[in-house]
Amino acid sequence: MSLLHTECPDLGVPEAMPPLPPAASARLAAFAEKIERLTPTFIGYPCSQDYDHTNLAHFLKYSLNNVGDPFADSIYRENTFEFERDVVAFFQRHLRAPDGETWGYVTGGGTEGNLYGLFLARELYPDGVVYYSEHTHYSVAKIVRVLGARSIMIRGQDNGEVDYDDLYETLKLRRDVPPILMVNVGNTMHGAVDSIPRIREMLKDLAITRFYIHADAALSGMILPFVSDPQPFGFDAGIDSIAVSGHKFIGAPMPCGVALARRRNVDRVARSVEYVGCMDTTIAGSRNALSPLILWSAIERWGEDGLRRRVERALATADYAIERFKEYGIEAWRHRNSVTVVFPRPGGEVIRRWQIAPSRDIAHIITMPHVTHEMVDLAIADVANSIAASGG
Amino acid sequence: MSLLHTECPDLGVPEAMPPLPPAASARLAAFAEKIERLTPTFIGYPCSQDYDHTNLAHFLKYSLNNVGDPFADSIYRENTFEFERDVVAFFQRHLRAPDGETWGYVTGGGTEGNLYGLFLARELYPDGVVYYSEHTHYSVAKIVRVLGARSIMIRGQDNGEVDYDDLYETLKLRRDVPPILMVNVGNTMHGAVDSIPRIREMLKDLAITRFYIHADAALSGMILPFVSDPQPFGFDAGIDSIAVSGHKFIGAPMPCGVALARRRNVDRVARSVEYVGCMDTTIAGSRNALSPLILWSAIERWGEDGLRRRVERALATADYAIERFKEYGIEAWRHRNSVTVVFPRPGGEVIRRWQIAPSRDIAHIITMPHVTHEMVDLAIADVANSIAASGG
Repeated sequence: MSLLHTECPDLGVPEAMPPLPPAASARLAAFAEKIERLTPTFIGYPCSQDYDHTNLAHFLKYSLNNVGDPFADSIYRENTFEFERDVVAFFQRHLRAPDGETWGYVTGGGTEGNLYGLFLARELYPDGVVYYSEHTHYSVAKIVRVLGARSIMIRGQDNGEVDYDDLYETLKLRRDVPPILMVNVGNTMHGAVDSIPRIREMLKDLAITRFYIHADAALSGMILPFVSDPQPFGFDAGIDSIAVSGHKFIGAPMPCGVALARRRNVDRVARSVEYVGCMDTTIAGSRNALSPLILWSAIERWGEDGLRRRVERALATADYAIERFKEYGIEAWRHRNSVTVVFPRPGGEVIRRWQIAPSRDIAHIITMPHVTHEMVDLAIADVANSIAASGG
Repeated sequence: MSLLHTECPDLGVPEAMPPLPPAASARLAAFAEKIERLTPTFIGYPCSQDYDHTNLAHFLKYSLNNVGDPFADSIYRENTFEFERDVVAFFQRHLRAPDGETWGYVTGGGTEGNLYGLFLARELYPDGVVYYSEHTHYSVAKIVRVLGARSIMIRGQDNGEVDYDDLYETLKLRRDVPPILMVNVGNTMHGAVDSIPRIREMLKDLAITRFYIHADAALSGMILPFVSDPQPFGFDAGIDSIAVSGHKFIGAPMPCGVALARRRNVDRVARSVEYVGCMDTTIAGSRNALSPLILWSAIERWGEDGLRRRVERALATADYAIERFKEYGIEAWRHRNSVTVVFPRPGGEVIRRWQIAPSRDIAHIITMPHVTHEMVDLAIADVANSIAASGG
């Protein structure tokens, strides 16, 4: 084939990618060591780390891209749509979506999932007002801003749930505009689950029939399906869309998640987006195709039983942590079905060492499946020392 | 340490992640083979594939996350901010940003970068109107919709550039609202670069002083810095923000990119976003930390000379393709400094085999650095057969 063109062999074939120069290579090795050194203190964030996905390294050679709708055909065939569809089906099942009534895709993380849900809501109700509690993740305020949506922040209770009275009174004052309710299914700081039944009751009581409920279930969306007595959290509880992170409970080396929404709403919005010349209803367009593969692999490797065992162990570790705190005379607590253990804020040194995100006068550790009793012991001893030193 | 708790050793330490079950493992192997089989026909998309990043596989074991601003401190220390800052600096230099006057971060792809730029613009000019040509990537229509911004689509020329007369006349009719100009620096279909100087001249001529220019330079943003006679494309040409993909010219196994914007605008918007309780001015929040590492590694491995050689080879391959088309009597063309070779649309079979994205009556191949003369020969022979068979 190339006989004709032997006069320019160097231009006809690609140059091999050179290796990292020695200095860069040394820097990378030092960085890898630093990351390795951080892992024993990784107890403050809701990200599992009990995995090893190096078996998927092979795919770091290909320009994989899940551009657009995973259920559509794509000319771009270097995609992992087939695995993504399996991941979406897994989430649909566990988030109790009625057969065939939802659509979804793998996102680049919780923010994209929440943006997707609230975008749908605002398209359906352009004059809608987004209600979210003050204990909602800060990214929601940003999303609301990006969407240019009207919004009202509702008071939160000390336990992390929305203040239902404040929500009711606020809804009551604005019965002329459709509410877009952003509920927390496990909020970031306290692991609190807003009561979806109670919120739906309010809407019924106020005879509000045009509304939208989006659930931010970043962490708990993959815990509650595996406990015996979950708080209402899924489509069976009456939500319209939900965002769950993939890098949190399941765990992944990069942020990812799943967004699910009722198909009738997706289709309605898809038609209006198509009208402006865009057939792609995902937010991102070009999407990471490795993360669906990672989630698929994790689901296959753990299996449902394995995931359930991880939930049980994480909950038991949370109880263990509360017990240890008690031994030091420190009051720590968690919500039912939550692995977020809340305690009084320690000093900055401890916060830094254990990568703990505090808020006002509280802090938390999150006993994800990779967290050992030894990590808990060490972290709590440090917290106790810090609180004792400050005379707390 | 754990002596106290030997009664529950199974709960105290994490379970090892099981391997993939045999059926899943076989499926994954078959998928890897399928992807490998597709690579010799990967000529229709602007994604380089002349890399191998399996040396970074080690990081598929860690929950890396670049949450928030790469130039800020983070409690979450399993991040690659130090590499991300180097990547941003590299892009700042090559996109001709005046020292210290821009800010940026690594995005999850072109859409996030364009969303970021247009979000800034809309925050600065809430009553602004977004102008974009009909040859702009379809995701921009979606972004404008997400932002709830007013917009006007401008006619495009057959060569892919915006129709300057239509733009001028439209601007002239709306001198009371600040224009937000979305310019293409290498549009998707034709590789056309809108003339930023001409657009700035229009604004001057119409005495419009409040305006914003965002450049979508997904592909060409990493080509133009390495040619001797680039069309105006960077901050020195008077743009306010720019989005460049990382997975396109540089190449990456997952979509990623860099968004840069003038710091004075970023800071103004940051203050208003902080006001609603959000200190994070990136769009995504939790962000992929592996992709900055991949971009850093690619930049280090190729070096500036290597990147320049890749540009030269890709442009030479584009010329080679045009020559080959000519031998078949098919008129094909490209823009100056573009590797997008445009030709008449072939039949569906050819489009499918070579993963070619057509538009109306044209199609293109994109001679990225991994594209060999042999691939060009085979693809063009197929296109020629298809066109001949249809009597074209």
